[in-house]
Amino acid sequence: MAFITSSVEYGLHCLLWLVDPDCGQPSSRDLAELQGVSPSFVAKIFPKLEKAGIVRAAQGVRGGYRLARDPAEISLLDIVDAIEGDKPLFDCQEIRGRCAVFGDSAPRWATQGVCAIHAAMLRAETAMRDSLAAESLAHIAATVGRKAPADFTREVRTWLDGKAAGRAPGRTPRRRNAST
Amino acid sequence: MAFITSSVEYGLHCLLWLVDPDCGQPSSRDLAELQGVSPSFVAKIFPKLEKAGIVRAAQGVRGGYRLARDPAEISLLDIVDAIEGDKPLFDCQEIRGRCAVFGDSAPRWATQGVCAIHAAMLRAETAMRDSLAAESLAHIAATVGRKAPADFTREVRTWLDGKAAGRAPGRTPRRRNAST
Repeated sequence: MAFITSSVEYGLHCLLWLVDPDCGQPSSRDLAELQGVSPSFVAKIFPKLEKAGIVRAAQGVRGGYRLARDPAEISLLDIVDAIEGDKPLFDCQEIRGRCAVFGDSAPRWATQGVCAIHAAMLRAETAMRDSLAAESLAHIAATVGRKAPADFTREVRTWLDGKAAGRAPGRTPRRRNAST
Repeated sequence: MAFITSSVEYGLHCLLWLVDPDCGQPSSRDLAELQGVSPSFVAKIFPKLEKAGIVRAAQGVRGGYRLARDPAEISLLDIVDAIEGDKPLFDCQEIRGRCAVFGDSAPRWATQGVCAIHAAMLRAETAMRDSLAAESLAHIAATVGRKAPADFTREVRTWLDGKAAGRAPGRTPRRRNAST
């Protein structure tokens, strides 16, 4: 399995649609259906993004999600950390302390400080995290937006509006909250 | 599970002992026992390191492994790639082509080139790999060596010599090759 999982991939693709200020407040189900991915899978991602202060849930029957802050201030690292949690690149097992010549207990010099192998892995992890921190959601959305023809954004807004209208009171009484 | 697994951790710790030119030619079992880790687990790692040209198996009953090239020319990336194989940080599923407004097939503009999300992940992967490529086995061994007292290296050599002597003809007839 890849280190950065499909939860991040799905979450990121959903967030890209929310960068458009005129996208409304789509539900996680709307965003999943817009992209042809599993609604139940996406529904588990949004509470994590909300907890991390990346999205905000809007109240009401037609409520859904919107970005909680400027997309230029949301980095890929923020999103990866929100969805994946604390997940190290390398999990040091402190093998250095088990050397047979130490007998029953390792001397202090052998286990003090960070293991040199672990330290090198931490430098690689920092390099990866620094790169993710330098990428903003706004920048990625702009890159995607430059490829799309002008009418594509309009078509997506219309599609999302139709979904939101379907959530109007009396239309779909069983779908009463933002995350379904 | 961490992205860089315990196979890399065990392999790297074994390789550190081989940097000492006077360590002899320990078997993978000797190296595993020296470090208190599973010999059968370590035995699976060495063929990968040999295939990648990082270690060379010495022939004969007392044969074992030695480095195949200068440890200053062996990077952490060489070792990670040898043991982990081709393992991407992020596995793009091309979600961009599934947008509901496209209907049955995505237009060419939507799927041409690398997905902007994937491209950002590839930059993070490159940053991580560049960092691993900048770390040499020799440098890590020197960092470890600076912490150890002078008699530690002698004790390890004596321990490994004892193990190699145990593999002499007539002593342990069932252990006849380098990797056991």
